[in-house]
Amino acid sequence: MNNKNESITRQEDDFAQWYTDVCLKAELMDYSSVKGFIIYRPYGYALWENIQHYMDKKFKDVGVENVYLPMVIPTSLFQKEKDHVVGFAPETLIATQGGKNELEDPLIIRPTSETLFCEHYAKIIESYRDLPKRYNQWCSVVRWEKTTRPFLRGSEFLWQEGHTMYETEEEARKDALRMLEIYDAVGRDLLAIPFVKGIKTDKEKFAGAVETYSIEALMPDGKALQSGTTHYFGDGFAKAFGISFLGRNNKLETPHQTSWGVSTRLLGAIIMVHGDDNGLVLPPYVAPTQVVIIPIQQKNPEVLKKAREYYEKLKAAGIRVKLDDSDKSPGWKYSEYEMKGVPLRLEVGPRDIANGVCVIAKRNDSSKMTVKEEDVLKEIPHLFEVIHDEMYKRAFRYLLDHTTEAHSIKELGEILDRGGYAKVMWCGERECEDKIKELYQATARCIPFEQNPFDDKCLVCGKKAKKVVFFARAY
Amino acid sequence: MNNKNESITRQEDDFAQWYTDVCLKAELMDYSSVKGFIIYRPYGYALWENIQHYMDKKFKDVGVENVYLPMVIPTSLFQKEKDHVVGFAPETLIATQGGKNELEDPLIIRPTSETLFCEHYAKIIESYRDLPKRYNQWCSVVRWEKTTRPFLRGSEFLWQEGHTMYETEEEARKDALRMLEIYDAVGRDLLAIPFVKGIKTDKEKFAGAVETYSIEALMPDGKALQSGTTHYFGDGFAKAFGISFLGRNNKLETPHQTSWGVSTRLLGAIIMVHGDDNGLVLPPYVAPTQVVIIPIQQKNPEVLKKAREYYEKLKAAGIRVKLDDSDKSPGWKYSEYEMKGVPLRLEVGPRDIANGVCVIAKRNDSSKMTVKEEDVLKEIPHLFEVIHDEMYKRAFRYLLDHTTEAHSIKELGEILDRGGYAKVMWCGERECEDKIKELYQATARCIPFEQNPFDDKCLVCGKKAKKVVFFARAY
Repeated sequence: MNNKNESITRQEDDFAQWYTDVCLKAELMDYSSVKGFIIYRPYGYALWENIQHYMDKKFKDVGVENVYLPMVIPTSLFQKEKDHVVGFAPETLIATQGGKNELEDPLIIRPTSETLFCEHYAKIIESYRDLPKRYNQWCSVVRWEKTTRPFLRGSEFLWQEGHTMYETEEEARKDALRMLEIYDAVGRDLLAIPFVKGIKTDKEKFAGAVETYSIEALMPDGKALQSGTTHYFGDGFAKAFGISFLGRNNKLETPHQTSWGVSTRLLGAIIMVHGDDNGLVLPPYVAPTQVVIIPIQQKNPEVLKKAREYYEKLKAAGIRVKLDDSDKSPGWKYSEYEMKGVPLRLEVGPRDIANGVCVIAKRNDSSKMTVKEEDVLKEIPHLFEVIHDEMYKRAFRYLLDHTTEAHSIKELGEILDRGGYAKVMWCGERECEDKIKELYQATARCIPFEQNPFDDKCLVCGKKAKKVVFFARAY
Repeated sequence: MNNKNESITRQEDDFAQWYTDVCLKAELMDYSSVKGFIIYRPYGYALWENIQHYMDKKFKDVGVENVYLPMVIPTSLFQKEKDHVVGFAPETLIATQGGKNELEDPLIIRPTSETLFCEHYAKIIESYRDLPKRYNQWCSVVRWEKTTRPFLRGSEFLWQEGHTMYETEEEARKDALRMLEIYDAVGRDLLAIPFVKGIKTDKEKFAGAVETYSIEALMPDGKALQSGTTHYFGDGFAKAFGISFLGRNNKLETPHQTSWGVSTRLLGAIIMVHGDDNGLVLPPYVAPTQVVIIPIQQKNPEVLKKAREYYEKLKAAGIRVKLDDSDKSPGWKYSEYEMKGVPLRLEVGPRDIANGVCVIAKRNDSSKMTVKEEDVLKEIPHLFEVIHDEMYKRAFRYLLDHTTEAHSIKELGEILDRGGYAKVMWCGERECEDKIKELYQATARCIPFEQNPFDDKCLVCGKKAKKVVFFARAY
């Protein structure tokens, strides 16, 4: 495909610059004057809203309730769980002045809210009848990052954080896996992104968690993007915060906890997994505009009249449609909506009207077809399915083609240099994991649920291998 | 009505304590360990979500787009518009440390985002073709308050803030009034709360605004509650931030600005306007649970079966329904859902089943009726209308009964001491307004759009009166 939108860098010339160009030119975001704090422009925010609506419904279907907790955490409260502090303290933003006075207990702008949820749960959980608690909040969090990139790593980002408490370990462990399945379904059914699902190594797990599960996406530059995590906490936080309940046997027990979150990182995944040299390519079910109607020779009043008819018809059918009847040229409009990744373009001109048809162009493969006017309402939802399927399969093919067994340290380096996942047989020792990071700046992305071992020795130390691990360089 | 819920203070004994009791016992909120930063519990947050969904749709219908801007404002940026700084500086929370380093330009946690929107608009507005811009964000803001009360005055609260830019003054002025009409409709159609609409005096208007409009609700303790404001800014901020556009005549022009917001204060209004000694009384269209089903003698399997039938039927009809089949007594359940203000209670027991009926009780007036099973789906939506109407009319009657013309300074004091609005003829001078505040701790709530002057002299100075102003003590 030609690079028609010459205002953006080509992917093969500089992938990172291509990404930034698309973020800006597709008007997804803009920079503010504070590094790492971005502006979510209407088009980017609408993407996030569509993800939110989809997920919020899934959450509520499994009994999750939304709440809102404070955006500040007293330093003294934040320090209650030791691993957690060590993990987050270096990247906190701290308020020290309120209403002209110095604060005695400075306030941390929340980087995550485990401590706040635990403090609240300690107050409201008394009996097994109060369990489970499954709370979620949609909010922004702040992590003071040195290196930031739009949507991928920000000092402030939007996310949802779920925090639960269960009567038993078994229920809590199930919850962490169930929420991971919901995240996986968001990729499969909404974003057309295949994820690798698995469990994190101890080195890579969340500060304070017993176990961390993640969904990992693979970007076209060969780097992995952690796209969502769920955590089983055991009763560590609960004990630190003095949360207990009167159990069925009339004895005091400690509840078992999980948390789980996805963030606006998912926007970064959509941009990279599907985009091309003409800009964004949006999967139809998450696209803010699913169909754009472009009138050809719109000074002809019949054309604009017909374009409006199509608009009203699609809108009434619940399709997110836009009619661009501005005085810009059709060619300019084509480029613009290609850049914005609108899945379908519907063109209608005098000759089409005479023939009782319109022309529909697919963004994802640039194919065009002529559709009878009376078939449009049936054809468009069908095309959404087709496009979604094509986009998912293309991404899945890329994932398969870039997931390779490493049979030697040297081969591991070659695989990582080509980009993608290296499957590594691993003994389970931290040292071997560290060694790979040291040699190749690659991390254990996860121990995938689908194991398929291919060797019985650890790639690094040669001792007995216990697990297949996916290593990759990562965002 | 008897006070059955003895766990809460009676309104007539201590209205402020009654309010706090209801906030806590109805599980709308809880306190966190930082003063003024509350926890929105599921029931309280669901109320806010219902308001959000309703308003968000109204906003989008008039072309508003959602965005998200940073939660921090560099001190240097915040100081660009002088009146604005003077208004907000004393109540800001300031972050001075990021990732262990002192910040050179400390960051103010946003108390409102005019400055951020202006900075962004300066970058993206170039031509009249880029106008209007109508952006809104749903977020929380922080104002470091000395005296705080749940929902009414918090150091952090949830709100929406709309910020617009228009080509002409006329359009911007229209916008400020149009958004006020939307707010007024939220009261009338969703919350069953009548507002007084009007314009603020110069003394009471928003820091930096040319004009501020507001909706004011009247609480049962006789105090007014400002429930939403819209502002026309002229071009003051736009000039301070260097925002200009190439006009239709090819000359550089300055756009005209508005902003508008409502907050979780609306929850405070709902609680106070409608609540009684048994707890919350929720208007049906905003209630998280609209109908609660209570089985009577639920050990009888026929009863539970029938209760579930009702539940499924109502749910399928889109009614927000809850079935309480816990092992608590019906009496306990009645109190509980009265406290939570659920508009309708549906009781079903063996005798009802035999007669092919159920019993429906209205929370707002405690009346009960027997309804044939086959009529329930028709009757309930009808009852929602009736209840909404009764609640609105009751509140409107209270408003009328507590709005009184003041013909002398002495009478003004008496009216304010009884509680409610005093209508005051006013010359327009700040001194006279200050005098009333000094004498009676009452403020000019607004200059209502419906004027109906009743005298030609200023109540305070006796000079020519220009306006009818509503004075009241206020939250």
